[in-house]
Amino acid sequence: MEHKLHAGIIGLGLIGGSMGLALRELQMFACIAGFDNNPLHSQQALSLGLVDECIDLRELITQSDVIFLATPVEAIISLMPQLTHIKPSATIIDLGGTKERIIQHIPDSIRKNFVAAHPMAGTEFYGPKAALPNLFKDSIVILANLQDSGDSQVQIAREIFLGIGMKIIKMDAHEHDKHIALISHMPHVISYALANAVLKQKDPQTILALIGGGFKSMSRLSKSSPKMWSDIFKQNTQNVLDSITSFQNELQKAKDMLQSKDWEGLEAFMAQANKLQDFM
Amino acid sequence: MEHKLHAGIIGLGLIGGSMGLALRELQMFACIAGFDNNPLHSQQALSLGLVDECIDLRELITQSDVIFLATPVEAIISLMPQLTHIKPSATIIDLGGTKERIIQHIPDSIRKNFVAAHPMAGTEFYGPKAALPNLFKDSIVILANLQDSGDSQVQIAREIFLGIGMKIIKMDAHEHDKHIALISHMPHVISYALANAVLKQKDPQTILALIGGGFKSMSRLSKSSPKMWSDIFKQNTQNVLDSITSFQNELQKAKDMLQSKDWEGLEAFMAQANKLQDFM
Repeated sequence: MEHKLHAGIIGLGLIGGSMGLALRELQMFACIAGFDNNPLHSQQALSLGLVDECIDLRELITQSDVIFLATPVEAIISLMPQLTHIKPSATIIDLGGTKERIIQHIPDSIRKNFVAAHPMAGTEFYGPKAALPNLFKDSIVILANLQDSGDSQVQIAREIFLGIGMKIIKMDAHEHDKHIALISHMPHVISYALANAVLKQKDPQTILALIGGGFKSMSRLSKSSPKMWSDIFKQNTQNVLDSITSFQNELQKAKDMLQSKDWEGLEAFMAQANKLQDFM
Repeated sequence: MEHKLHAGIIGLGLIGGSMGLALRELQMFACIAGFDNNPLHSQQALSLGLVDECIDLRELITQSDVIFLATPVEAIISLMPQLTHIKPSATIIDLGGTKERIIQHIPDSIRKNFVAAHPMAGTEFYGPKAALPNLFKDSIVILANLQDSGDSQVQIAREIFLGIGMKIIKMDAHEHDKHIALISHMPHVISYALANAVLKQKDPQTILALIGGGFKSMSRLSKSSPKMWSDIFKQNTQNVLDSITSFQNELQKAKDMLQSKDWEGLEAFMAQANKLQDFM
């Protein structure tokens, strides 16, 4: 690349902030600008060195060569009209956890500029202080409906994701949302429900004094951002509902076997679950 | 202590094996003997240095000053008649994950010798190869119905658990089983059911290629030993059923809000779950 590009990151929380740190290491960009509509987040992102500068949203959109959308997914859709003011050759990479609804909302005039991505990386923490330099390393990123993105934009997105250590999987947006509902969105609902099942007991303090590693694993996701997740549930409602139903059916099977003291059946159920390891 | 004691560990898997390693560091015992009814496990425990020697079960029971019961919980109950052959001053410490049924089965003649313990430590792996030297360090151990154990036996158990770095919580066995059903046993059922919900999809391979950290956390427990867990479910059936019902109710609430697109309610549900952190 002859001259270095300008990057702009909209949304400076866990994902946007970590992207800033990762891009720094990449040395592909002359400057990494950021914008967050929460002034405190902008300030924190600057003092943590997640971005080089925080600029006006309009300025970021009109001047960046590569724009990352790292806001909750409903805000990504709200940003669409303003994104039509990009440079003609710009690349927009959205990092949202849903893909179908976002892609449906991309204006035709910037469809080629747009690369719809979902990095399968995160933690239960959020905000600029949660940003980590190696969040994306060795994780996978799903690129959805890539056939509708421009060749040069796909090339740049590939270069960035491979450069920060990610493995690329291409997928249809509809399939993405269905699979991710099962593997990510629904498990978050379970974790939130598990936390609430314990919190509503008479004396959660006594119970929670007994916590071991198992409960820690299972409840970790229940710390996640309600705002971010409510957006995701809005956009992927039916798939999440279907995934919850699949899970409920399995749970009910286990419960029925417990109730009828079918220990042989229950052991077979657990042995079947053990097979998950063979796939991972 | 004037002369060093002899320890005997029955069951040389994750828990018994890790106890062997921890006792070694403690230097309170002249010798740590082991027994496992699986000859392969005995062999592995010896070659991994989890115990000093593997001896006959009868010999272990009659000659040890401190006996640890680290088998699945149904086997702990089966061992009771043989345990009446201990030295008069011996301490028997059971390490099972249920307490009420085990305590009900302790013969009167050895009730004072018996200390019913549940170390809240473990991993999803099992067998001698899963043993870890620091498994118990900084975890808590619940001692149940301590008023029925002998003073010197309680003293020895305290010395051991504190010595290997554990924090002691005393609790009534009935309360233990109720709380632990919620915080540990039921979450295992959820994890097994989650694994099976994914495995029964048309193409689990494609879905599981997309795994991120969230699903890894939620499915970790589904790798656990079916034999060990089926024993626990047998002994704590009603509490586990009640805990599953509590969880199902919370999950159904979330599902209903998704279905009716009650985003405000769903955000409040998640914000409530976030409060779990304040207790942990």
